[in-house]
Formats: sequence, C-alpha cells, structure tokens
Amino acid sequence: MSALEALGADVAIVATPANRCYLTGFTGDLGAASTRDVAFIARDRTILLTYPIHTGWAASEVIERIEIRGHRDWLASAVEVIAEQGWLTVAIDDAVMSHASAIGLRTLLPEAVTLVDLGSRLSALRVRKDDDELAAMQRSALLTDEVLFDASGWIKAGMTERSVARRINETFYRLGADDLAFTVIVASGPNAAKPHHRPTDRVLVAGDPVVIDLGCRLDRYCSDLTRTLSVGPPTDRFVTLYNATLASRDAAVALIEPGRPAKDVAAAANEVARKLGFGDLLMHGLGHGVGLQIHEAPAIHETSEDVLEVGMVFSVEPGLYDPAWGGIRIEDVVVVTEAGHEVITSAPKLDLSASP
Amino acid sequence: MSALEALGADVAIVATPANRCYLTGFTGDLGAASTRDVAFIARDRTILLTYPIHTGWAASEVIERIEIRGHRDWLASAVEVIAEQGWLTVAIDDAVMSHASAIGLRTLLPEAVTLVDLGSRLSALRVRKDDDELAAMQRSALLTDEVLFDASGWIKAGMTERSVARRINETFYRLGADDLAFTVIVASGPNAAKPHHRPTDRVLVAGDPVVIDLGCRLDRYCSDLTRTLSVGPPTDRFVTLYNATLASRDAAVALIEPGRPAKDVAAAANEVARKLGFGDLLMHGLGHGVGLQIHEAPAIHETSEDVLEVGMVFSVEPGLYDPAWGGIRIEDVVVVTEAGHEVITSAPKLDLSASP
Repeated sequence: MSALEALGADVAIVATPANRCYLTGFTGDLGAASTRDVAFIARDRTILLTYPIHTGWAASEVIERIEIRGHRDWLASAVEVIAEQGWLTVAIDDAVMSHASAIGLRTLLPEAVTLVDLGSRLSALRVRKDDDELAAMQRSALLTDEVLFDASGWIKAGMTERSVARRINETFYRLGADDLAFTVIVASGPNAAKPHHRPTDRVLVAGDPVVIDLGCRLDRYCSDLTRTLSVGPPTDRFVTLYNATLASRDAAVALIEPGRPAKDVAAAANEVARKLGFGDLLMHGLGHGVGLQIHEAPAIHETSEDVLEVGMVFSVEPGLYDPAWGGIRIEDVVVVTEAGHEVITSAPKLDLSASP
Repeated sequence: MSALEALGADVAIVATPANRCYLTGFTGDLGAASTRDVAFIARDRTILLTYPIHTGWAASEVIERIEIRGHRDWLASAVEVIAEQGWLTVAIDDAVMSHASAIGLRTLLPEAVTLVDLGSRLSALRVRKDDDELAAMQRSALLTDEVLFDASGWIKAGMTERSVARRINETFYRLGADDLAFTVIVASGPNAAKPHHRPTDRVLVAGDPVVIDLGCRLDRYCSDLTRTLSVGPPTDRFVTLYNATLASRDAAVALIEPGRPAKDVAAAANEVARKLGFGDLLMHGLGHGVGLQIHEAPAIHETSEDVLEVGMVFSVEPGLYDPAWGGIRIEDVVVVTEAGHEVITSAPKLDLSASP
C-alpha cells in the first residue's frame, strides 16, 4: 500500500469499514463510520482483528491468506499484535478512530513505537472503480430506478411522508435489495425546502413538490437517486424550478470527462441557476462519490480540488430550495469513462416543456 | 448535566448521535456511531452545530430553546462557538470523536482552553427509560414479534438466507417499521454456529437450524429479537441444544430485579449450560441494553459491574454454538420493574418437550 511508503510506516491500522472491506473482503459493519474490527495492513501480511463473535463470519468472507484473530479488549490485543510483529512505525486511521482509542494505544505501546496519522491517504484507495465494481453499481442503480418508477405510480394526495417511505422501503426489499444505503428522504411541500429531512406524518396535498432521495446496497455497492414529483398537476413554481434544476443538471453532466476539475462541473450547474436568478436558492454542493460508502471521494463542489479520472463514480444532484414554498432536487449517478461519461441512473424525469 | 459538574467543565461537546438526540430531539444520523452534527451542552444553554443542509431539519425536531447553527468547517465553527461563549473547560466525547477532530480542536483552541474527556460519563444518561420510552419500545418489540411470527409461517427448505432476509425486511416495512435497527441475521445450518453473520446464498435444507436475529426502529426506539427455527422436523441435536438454551434463558430471566448485579444474571444462564456439559459451546455475553441505540448500557455478562435498576431495558440472549453442526440462540428483551421484571418480546418459542 503506497500510504505505508509515503508515511515510512511498517503497518496501517485501518478502522474505516469500507476501506477494511475493500482490503480484506470482510463486510462486518460495512455501513458504519468506524469499528473495532480493524485490519492491520503491513507490507508482507494482513491481520484482521475482530470481535470474537465475528471470527467465523470473517473467515467465510476474507480474501487470500489473511490471518483472523478475535479480540476481547481490542486495545490490549492490538498492542500484542504490534509487539509480536516487531512493527515500530504504526499508521493509525485518525480520521475515524476515536480519540480515546488513539490515546489508549499511545499509552499502552512502548515508547519505541511511533504512531503516525493516515489522514486522508486512504480516501483515494477506492476512488477508481474497476469493471466488477461498476457492474455491481449498475445493478444497484437499476434496482433503485425500478423502485422510484414503481413509487411514482402510487404516490398520491392523502398519504403521509412516513407511509410513502415505508412503501418505498418495502419495494426495495421486494425487488431484491440487500440493504438500504441510507434512510430514504421523502420531503413534501415546505419540507422539500430541507435538503435532508426525516419522513414525518405530514399528509401530501395537491400541488406539493415531493423530493424522493433513495438508494440501496446490492452486492456491497450503494446506489443514490433523487427525483422530485408533483402531487397532482405541477404548479407554475414547480415547473419553473424543475426546469431550472434540470438545466443545471444537464450543464454539469455535459462537462464530465477525464481531466476536468470537479469544481468546473459544479460551477457549471450553479451558473445556470444564478443566470436564471435562483442563486439564492442554492444550498449545497453538486455531488459526492458513491461506492462501498454512500458518501466518499471525489467531492464535487465549487472549491473541490479533485480532478476527474476514468472510473470515478459520483452523484450530480443540483437542488433549488425556497423555504416559503418547497424545493426541487434531481440526482443522477455518473461514471467517468475514457470517452467522457456514462449516466448509470435512468429513472424517468418529468417532461414539463408542455406544462403551464 | 451532572457530567459537567463531575468534570468541572463549562460545556460538553456531545458527538454520539443517540446522546445528542436524547438531549436535543434532533434525530440526524441516529443509527450512526458518531457525527459532526454535535450538541454543545452548557449549564445554561444548548447550541446544536450541524451541517448547513441539516439546519431546517433540526429546527423541525429540536426541543425548547435550542439554538441551531450550520457549520461549513465544523472545527472552525466549534472554535468560534467556544470563544464566543467564553467557555474555558470543554469536555469532549472522546469515546466517539475522531482522533483527528480532537487533535484539530486542541491545535485551534487557545491555550487558555482546557480539554477534558467525557469518557463513559454519558453512558448512564439514557439507561433508565421513562414511560414514554417504554411505550415506544413495547410498540417496536410488538411489531418485531409480528414479523417473526409471519416469517415462521413461510421459511422453508429451498429458500436462500438472502431471500429470507429480504422478505423479513419487506415485512418489517409493510407492518409499519420506520427503519431496521440492524442488518437482519439469517444463519442456517453450519452458518448458525457464527453468532454474527451476513445472509448468504446458502440454500436452506431439511434439518437445518436457522437463527433469525432481527429488530426495527419505531418512533426512534430499537427492538431486538432472536428465535431459532428448524427447517422441517427438529433433529435430536436441535432439540437438545434448544432446550438447554431455553433453560439458560429462563434461569437468567428469573433473577432479574432491581439491585441484582448483572453478572449474576449472566452467570445463572451460563451455569445451566455448563451443568449440561455445553460450557464449550458458549461464545458471547448474555445481553446488552437496548434503546435509542441497538447496543447500549447496561452490559450483561459475567464480568459486568452494572447493577440492575428500575427502567433498564436489555436483551437476554443465550446461545450455544457448535461449529461442526450449527447453533441455537434465543433472545428476549426485558424491562426491570419495581416488582422484578417484564418481558416485552412475545414471539412464540418452540415447544419441543414432546419431540424425539
């Protein structure tokens, strides 16, 4: 692992579940932010230290010759492994490892052992997806398209946000999802002005915009999709903001190709909104990488320093939010290809060109 | 908050989502281990610092006069809040806050500000559930009982673990769950010897034990339930280990009352297994608290120092695991009451007294 060489480290303690899964195959706690099931990645060996009740599970999933050990007290076990292997420079996953664990390690390890921080050095590890990963992401995206398509046939006035959310989740599992990638957002009427929102008992009424932001996990990989529907015929405000958001999305997607700075893609979307007089309704960056995690590298916003590379997969999700009315968000997931890009989400968008 | 006084602190930065939710009402990232949507809990005020796109969501959920502020760079915003309020001793949630964040805070704060560690001082905060919490937990448990009862009617040879898991998840949402509390465990045949396990494509065959460990979130509160089913008529090994596990469960539950050391409850269950000659098949502690988190205080195992109090809610989940065969686990959730205890899970168990 090049991070080891960059840091002059003998071993990296990887605590981010998605990175650990990528490097070992063990899925435990894949959706979590951090874990005590950590991988010690050294130049010549990998040791997976897990809760004792996870050893059998891990053994059924790990790749190649990875050694699995159960821990009772993970800090004490980690110190033992480090001593036994004679590692003297140990890189810790400081972006997710708890402060208490890092301080505990420092206290328990002999002074001869130096701790260094991995920082964001592992974030690039999974950023270019290979063909197997892309195939899994396409299956995950397709299933999510189907769920959204299904939902657009039954969402109607009188349902609550919570009842819509439950039926969407039910449909995900009926159609074959392994897990949800995140808690579905169903934001109706004025709630649609909140980019993130937990479904409430609010009843949908005619004229409401309804932002549906949903995704699942299939064969480990996440999907992410947003469409905004109208309850009953779309209002003038809906049509205006929907078409502006769609124009922002199209302007951004058109620029996606290898070598393009991510900030230029984000700027293109925002410029469309600003030129139409909706700059005040922008509330968030344009997108984020998707993969084993629902949010990962690259970052797609106007101050991002990331540059697009072949195999990157990320969301393009412009939104316009008016607290006095509601909001519109349209999200697709795009893969950077040699030829430019491919959009892997295909749920239909509204065609409002002939609307009032 | 008494933790402030114990530490001589002016403010506590609460980063554990369940604790933040309990103290403010904001549910964001409730199922996660940690977050950058943190609550500053001072003696005279509470300030909630969230991602900018969460401010509207938070405003719709928080209790009383809590001030909400969006951050762009959370460390910089945290430093500003601390300076503005004149806080000089700041307790950090070191058990979940990342090492990088804690070091970042230390670097950015003036030397006059002292950082102290909250450690486990907040773990007692939510340990005694009030009547509203108990009512939510009973609804969550009842829904889970119904899902298990439903599943026991259709689980049969020929299905895969993954297909069983998907249909269970579908049923949860159909019957009204808000979320799953964790990824359902469906562990069949030899896989049942792994206490934690991710559903695979293994096909169920007659004679298999199938451990089903499931739970949901309803009105914020988690449920947790395990039953072990037999595919077709139970084998002799199934009957023997099932009855031993059930006897362990009964011995433990009988001891639950206020003032009882948790370790005595765990020891009672394990003693039953040991006396029957199954001590080698024990692989984990007896149980864990359940509430806003699926795993929280108190700890129920033979070296726990917790003592039972009225209002505590925890799982009792003895299991026996034989790698050469499979395993059995039976899990109920119990509330400690003035009179002793009440079991809030009610899914039927197998009656194997008349079996071979």
